[in-house]
Amino acid sequence: MIEAGPKEACGVYGVWTHAQEKVDVARLAFFALYALQHRGQESAGIATSDGRTARQHKGMGLVAQVFNEANLRPLTGHLAIGHNRYSTTGNSVAANAQPHLIETIHGPLAVSHNGNLTNTDALRRALLQRGVGLISTTDSEVITQMLAAPPPGGEPNGPEWGKRIQAFMAAAEGAYSLVILTHDAIYAVRDPRGLRPLCIGELVSRSGRKVGWTVASESCALATVGARFLREVAPGEIIRLDRNGVQASQGAPVAARRGMCIFEYVYFARPDSVLEGQTVHEVRQRLGARLAEEAPVDADVVIGVPDSATPAAIGYTLASGIPYSEGLIKNRYIGRTFIEPTERLRQSSVSLKYNPLRANLEGKRVVLVDDSIVRGNTAGPLVQLLREGGAREVHVRVSSPPVRHPCFMGIDMATHEELIAFRMRVPAIQHHIGADSLAYISHAGMVAAVGPQAPTGQASTPHCAACFDGDYPLDVTAQLKVRSRRKCAFDD
Amino acid sequence: MIEAGPKEACGVYGVWTHAQEKVDVARLAFFALYALQHRGQESAGIATSDGRTARQHKGMGLVAQVFNEANLRPLTGHLAIGHNRYSTTGNSVAANAQPHLIETIHGPLAVSHNGNLTNTDALRRALLQRGVGLISTTDSEVITQMLAAPPPGGEPNGPEWGKRIQAFMAAAEGAYSLVILTHDAIYAVRDPRGLRPLCIGELVSRSGRKVGWTVASESCALATVGARFLREVAPGEIIRLDRNGVQASQGAPVAARRGMCIFEYVYFARPDSVLEGQTVHEVRQRLGARLAEEAPVDADVVIGVPDSATPAAIGYTLASGIPYSEGLIKNRYIGRTFIEPTERLRQSSVSLKYNPLRANLEGKRVVLVDDSIVRGNTAGPLVQLLREGGAREVHVRVSSPPVRHPCFMGIDMATHEELIAFRMRVPAIQHHIGADSLAYISHAGMVAAVGPQAPTGQASTPHCAACFDGDYPLDVTAQLKVRSRRKCAFDD
Amino acid sequence: MIEAGPKEACGVYGVWTHAQEKVDVARLAFFALYALQHRGQESAGIATSDGRTARQHKGMGLVAQVFNEANLRPLTGHLAIGHNRYSTTGNSVAANAQPHLIETIHGPLAVSHNGNLTNTDALRRALLQRGVGLISTTDSEVITQMLAAPPPGGEPNGPEWGKRIQAFMAAAEGAYSLVILTHDAIYAVRDPRGLRPLCIGELVSRSGRKVGWTVASESCALATVGARFLREVAPGEIIRLDRNGVQASQGAPVAARRGMCIFEYVYFARPDSVLEGQTVHEVRQRLGARLAEEAPVDADVVIGVPDSATPAAIGYTLASGIPYSEGLIKNRYIGRTFIEPTERLRQSSVSLKYNPLRANLEGKRVVLVDDSIVRGNTAGPLVQLLREGGAREVHVRVSSPPVRHPCFMGIDMATHEELIAFRMRVPAIQHHIGADSLAYISHAGMVAAVGPQAPTGQASTPHCAACFDGDYPLDVTAQLKVRSRRKCAFDD
Amino acid sequence: MIEAGPKEACGVYGVWTHAQEKVDVARLAFFALYALQHRGQESAGIATSDGRTARQHKGMGLVAQVFNEANLRPLTGHLAIGHNRYSTTGNSVAANAQPHLIETIHGPLAVSHNGNLTNTDALRRALLQRGVGLISTTDSEVITQMLAAPPPGGEPNGPEWGKRIQAFMAAAEGAYSLVILTHDAIYAVRDPRGLRPLCIGELVSRSGRKVGWTVASESCALATVGARFLREVAPGEIIRLDRNGVQASQGAPVAARRGMCIFEYVYFARPDSVLEGQTVHEVRQRLGARLAEEAPVDADVVIGVPDSATPAAIGYTLASGIPYSEGLIKNRYIGRTFIEPTERLRQSSVSLKYNPLRANLEGKRVVLVDDSIVRGNTAGPLVQLLREGGAREVHVRVSSPPVRHPCFMGIDMATHEELIAFRMRVPAIQHHIGADSLAYISHAGMVAAVGPQAPTGQASTPHCAACFDGDYPLDVTAQLKVRSRRKCAFDD
Repeated sequence: MIEAGPKEACGVYGVWTHAQEKVDVARLAFFALYALQHRGQESAGIATSDGRTARQHKGMGLVAQVFNEANLRPLTGHLAIGHNRYSTTGNSVAANAQPHLIETIHGPLAVSHNGNLTNTDALRRALLQRGVGLISTTDSEVITQMLAAPPPGGEPNGPEWGKRIQAFMAAAEGAYSLVILTHDAIYAVRDPRGLRPLCIGELVSRSGRKVGWTVASESCALATVGARFLREVAPGEIIRLDRNGVQASQGAPVAARRGMCIFEYVYFARPDSVLEGQTVHEVRQRLGARLAEEAPVDADVVIGVPDSATPAAIGYTLASGIPYSEGLIKNRYIGRTFIEPTERLRQSSVSLKYNPLRANLEGKRVVLVDDSIVRGNTAGPLVQLLREGGAREVHVRVSSPPVRHPCFMGIDMATHEELIAFRMRVPAIQHHIGADSLAYISHAGMVAAVGPQAPTGQASTPHCAACFDGDYPLDVTAQLKVRSRRKCAFDD
Repeated sequence: MIEAGPKEACGVYGVWTHAQEKVDVARLAFFALYALQHRGQESAGIATSDGRTARQHKGMGLVAQVFNEANLRPLTGHLAIGHNRYSTTGNSVAANAQPHLIETIHGPLAVSHNGNLTNTDALRRALLQRGVGLISTTDSEVITQMLAAPPPGGEPNGPEWGKRIQAFMAAAEGAYSLVILTHDAIYAVRDPRGLRPLCIGELVSRSGRKVGWTVASESCALATVGARFLREVAPGEIIRLDRNGVQASQGAPVAARRGMCIFEYVYFARPDSVLEGQTVHEVRQRLGARLAEEAPVDADVVIGVPDSATPAAIGYTLASGIPYSEGLIKNRYIGRTFIEPTERLRQSSVSLKYNPLRANLEGKRVVLVDDSIVRGNTAGPLVQLLREGGAREVHVRVSSPPVRHPCFMGIDMATHEELIAFRMRVPAIQHHIGADSLAYISHAGMVAAVGPQAPTGQASTPHCAACFDGDYPLDVTAQLKVRSRRKCAFDD
Repeated sequence: MIEAGPKEACGVYGVWTHAQEKVDVARLAFFALYALQHRGQESAGIATSDGRTARQHKGMGLVAQVFNEANLRPLTGHLAIGHNRYSTTGNSVAANAQPHLIETIHGPLAVSHNGNLTNTDALRRALLQRGVGLISTTDSEVITQMLAAPPPGGEPNGPEWGKRIQAFMAAAEGAYSLVILTHDAIYAVRDPRGLRPLCIGELVSRSGRKVGWTVASESCALATVGARFLREVAPGEIIRLDRNGVQASQGAPVAARRGMCIFEYVYFARPDSVLEGQTVHEVRQRLGARLAEEAPVDADVVIGVPDSATPAAIGYTLASGIPYSEGLIKNRYIGRTFIEPTERLRQSSVSLKYNPLRANLEGKRVVLVDDSIVRGNTAGPLVQLLREGGAREVHVRVSSPPVRHPCFMGIDMATHEELIAFRMRVPAIQHHIGADSLAYISHAGMVAAVGPQAPTGQASTPHCAACFDGDYPLDVTAQLKVRSRRKCAFDD
Repeated sequence: MIEAGPKEACGVYGVWTHAQEKVDVARLAFFALYALQHRGQESAGIATSDGRTARQHKGMGLVAQVFNEANLRPLTGHLAIGHNRYSTTGNSVAANAQPHLIETIHGPLAVSHNGNLTNTDALRRALLQRGVGLISTTDSEVITQMLAAPPPGGEPNGPEWGKRIQAFMAAAEGAYSLVILTHDAIYAVRDPRGLRPLCIGELVSRSGRKVGWTVASESCALATVGARFLREVAPGEIIRLDRNGVQASQGAPVAARRGMCIFEYVYFARPDSVLEGQTVHEVRQRLGARLAEEAPVDADVVIGVPDSATPAAIGYTLASGIPYSEGLIKNRYIGRTFIEPTERLRQSSVSLKYNPLRANLEGKRVVLVDDSIVRGNTAGPLVQLLREGGAREVHVRVSSPPVRHPCFMGIDMATHEELIAFRMRVPAIQHHIGADSLAYISHAGMVAAVGPQAPTGQASTPHCAACFDGDYPLDVTAQLKVRSRRKCAFDD
């Protein structure tokens, strides 16, 4: 997928270490966020605690831009959490950077959040009604203020963070993977559907001593900071990290309809991360192989849209026997630029990002593998670019089904109308992008390729694939009303 | 090649358009520099002229960080030059950003320079002796001030930029690809050996009208701004772009020993650039294929060090029949960070950049293709990383010969002592990096793979390969004295 | 008084205009804060409302540094409040800048605060207990969150800002002059003792149409923005500005012990401000005149410590007949510098700020008038400077009594121990500073000079003069415990 | 004088110390520039040398904004120069900040310049003709590059800075007080007319050891850094400071028409500075006294426009017997603001800076003393402000004659047309500003008051008073052509 900014996610991280080990937890958090940078490039932040005082620094930009030695060094302590926020064009303001840190009657409390609550409006209203003033429009402030209040029926004078988190989970709807810092513990919480990923690792010294524990959105961050992967946080689970190690409890019953977002496999997660026991790269290769079986084509070369579709392209090659090559070179230094292209350049804005490799394309029948098509703005120019680069035929193969439904669980997939596959059938899309042929993997094919096999007796996939099939795991009636202003849609 | 900062280069760009076409030349330069970002990430700058007044903006950082609408908009005019400077740790100061712009008796003059003069000290001294004060330590200031003076025997009152450039070429030694802006023309100049690349393109309107002409370090920048590649600037040639189009003249006789730096093929240039009629990607694939022939190995999978060695790895796959796969995932967001890793993390600093893909490595005999080994700091950790990822055997194959000699023609390849292949023979290096086997392509193999065939009657390669064979195309006695403090070296 | 940073205060401002008058209220607030800059130089901020949405900008530094056209222009609306915060060395952080803006169930709410609550700890604790998380250590956040909650017994669904403010006033102890912005009204509130100043003005168009109303800490801000002074806000009063004009109500009963801080007359307020019907400059002249009567001296010239003591020096001159002159030149550009003087320069740090005028001092007997002596660090060096400038005798006269007690009502006057007049009797101070004579105005003299005459039947002064006499208008037992760690003090 | 930005000047500073004394010369320069801040607020810079290497830092803004510990600390060495540049609206760019530092064949060379060369165009042209490219439009770059060249007939290989400076003095016309830093010496140079001030001081340790020598635009800077005033640099003199102390030589013959700018006495210099043996404050008092004799008025109170006219107002008081008081309060925090006042506020823009003191004005006949009237934009609003403050009559008295001619020797006094006294006779000005009476001091009165008495046989004043009488001490025909586009002027 090559479009700019069609999706929203975040990266979360937390670490607890024994104070006497003198681990520089802020630095650890920095490198973990660095490894999770693909999950959010708008802002970054770290909060630490030394058992009494919490400190934080956050700012706009990449983690390497936000932090320097001068602002990292004061972040002392033996526990820390961190956050990367995704860049959306709209509300990109410093006040929304996370973690959100407050003082409560029981000391400091900071929250890093990945996901999207679907009943935020009601939760905000309840807080305002209770007389709490809010300073931002973020979910994470809402969560923090909800945790600051004694839980209904709870002992008002005890911290009882566990009970407070349970009370939050009882009230909140939607997707959330949370990492929470109190003065002396880290909590990791995953919503009852387990929509967004979250995993636990262990920090071990060279001599094998357990130094601490750590949680992260993806296992690639654990590998980067040298932590040993333990397991994923289960849906509805609350994990507490403190001097007693990893303590698990069920914070809310697992939802009837559960399952992690399948788009993490398709595009989001880093290929070297392990989700549900599978390396993402491996899954993407399987998707590509399945795609080759379902939609074979007589061609000379397979290329992927770099870099996200490369694993699927390799899978297509392995299954089809058509040689793999590189046909598009991506500018490695593409970053956020605020310079608008001229009219002349805008016409071919993909050419600012990609150039074709004539030597590998000239006179050839090309299979172009992409991981997904969301808005469909750039597939057309890419096909055109390959033709200009000498390709005789261009056959587009997509390793996920058509995206026809917006996501309300943490990926900003725009409205129905912006989704090309909501507006057009596949043949129309093929014509629109000018490909010689176009095929998507089937829904069943994707489910089978992703695996793992659905538990016996459970008919459907164990993942949320609502963006493909519209089968939302929770009630999104309100959201659909707001987002989709167009009433009628074609029946595919 | 995966080491940080072992080489120095720059990107240069220039564009001349007919004023009535109202082309936003600063914006064009911006996107061209964006495409040339791989040649330098320390600073960026653009200078423009509207026929009378020159304006410029430059700053530290990536081109997308240096420029915004507010500082780009005032850069009006119909001709422009630009520059990307490489990031070295030492003299990274704003005063050294280019272009270097001065006022002369004949109006504004700005210079963008890629390369390295080998007699800078003498040239500086001559300027200082002449009573010119200098404000920086850059070659480009020296060049600009040399051009500001009337050429010996020249008419002092006429601009005669061509003659001035010839006088500069007569005095200067070393590597230089220059783009020069005067009030109404752009000059492009390449040293008599043609050591660094430089090419010419044509801007054509949709209706086929010639809008202007443009020069760039690499053709990928021409493609990005939608210009049509015309040809390369020849060694010793002076190109003048003005209302009369492209005017060429020979500024200095072509050197007896000539030839572009072969390292541009090996590592430097963007794979989609065309050098001497060949796409760089294609050459790298050929290097990989030749390497497979010269140094075959019984293995299960071929992987490349991402991203620079991917084309060579693909070439190795095609020639050997061993399947290609991805085995190392690179953090796409690695940028400059000023945060030092902790002791713990420093031990495995490559793991901040790369993670292994267990699924593709587990139990396998792996061929790891790299494009070059310079200092040898990271090959060892990478081999180790692959083993931790499950690889049964790791066979390192390098698609360029051992780097044994420093470069004084524009690539900062450190001193002799820092080059691992100067200090160690290949078996020692293999042991040092812990590989099951190690092989480099042969010198002859590289020359043959790069091509094109040397013209009849010319014995040696038509490229500078001094970093591999020590056969410098010009006198570097003085440089060698300074750089190599160790007297004896082994004979391989 | 010439010491750096011995006191803390703030400037507050608010304006309400009829929307159809299209007054640029943010700009008005800017210039009002500019006029109130002497009350606080650490940070500045402005919040506006257009009837629905509130916007704000704030930052560290002088108001002219914090605001520019780019950040002022988005502050649209027809009502605004502003704030200048005093620079203290300790908690000088951006998060403490005011106004403090939150969203409540009834829309936006922003608060600017001048003063110091004496029961902040209890109020914070009550909020935290109620489950409200706090993000700063400021009084203003506490006030805002207190106002966000429905008042006890209040109708939870109605805004009833007036009742909420009353509930706040019932709970809060200490000094506060507040300016509050809701979506459509401005409130101005003064504590029941009227400790800090606050006044109301009227904006009238050239044709005499009433355009709006405005409130400010001091009348000098009204004059600067062209508003007509109406009256002061009375102790305990709540003023509401909206489309119905100025509506007053008593928010809390006037305290038994009431009276504005007399130090506003002595040093704080701008000399052109009118407090309680008197121009501050005039009061300072009277203080100087009274001082001349109480403590005459046979001398040749009267000089004041510039600029704050100039009015008292003029008063001394008028009453004594001794000619006035300038004897010390102050560097007008003294601002905050972060450069530490060298050892050599530190010895005479007052000489970085002042130079003596030999021509006016040579051989003369000099009366040096100062408005107050707090820590006593600089009086000595100043006397020394005058002697070096040629003064034959230096007689120090202080137009306020010895400062012996810390302030807890909005002026940061340090602890008992830091006050020189708490540690030493007057003769010891005279010896300490090396003056030929030293005299302070008497307490009764100050009270008489400040006026206005105390209402019949009220024995004491109608002002708070606790820093001079220790007679605090409210219970400060807790504060005294914290601040004064030394148990015994001399009996004067 | 109260107008914004009508004049241009600069502050220069230099210090040489014995290396073994380990004086922090950059810090000394910082505090000296701090004391000279009134001479320029646009930019500040410091260059140092440790005998071999020169270092510098400069930037836009006040000296306290430009420097912090981090950028001051690297400025090591035992000699330094510094510069404050005046803020003009036009060419306020960082590239023009001084000192201007270059490398020459004889090592580093840096120049700080106060003044204005009148033949800059010819000097620039000569440099450009010689083939030297220039990077700014400043005089100081021109001077530096002139000094970089071997003097005509000079030994090209010796530094001979003295001869080079002489050669510069022979070629340059206009006003210049220069402080020059070479690798091991400081030079101070004053133009042959001595138009701008420059003085020498001595740094002595507490034990009386001579630590070093220092030069500054004004003696107030010497006092601030604890240096002992020695003498002024004489017109045409070159002073060299090095290990041998202060060495003087005559660099150019003293001009026939010589004399320091009289406006330094009138307005520019700090009142505590000593010029030609006289304290500036004392001279201003004498000007006020003379003004009282020449233009008496029956009035109740004398007030000065703060702060510059206060000494003259005191002088007027002393001579007239009319009591002195303060009638206008100036906002002490007026700094550069980039916020435009609203239409409403613009009408009375002086009220953003000044408020009247009703108590001192009500019903009174007021003498308003100003030091000068240049453009005449603000005298009218000030008179109006006093009337609004209750003044019954306002009599304006100006302690310098009408300014009728632009200055080309370092004060940017605009063009003829912008000078109100060029366009109008005094009665018209009085009517224009709405005063009850208006009088300026006579030319003869000013000359007599300033003193010292002209040497016998020299008819005219020993000062340049061209802005008052048009009697320029050098040829300004070219400048007059450019500046005055209006041909006819009235005959007064």
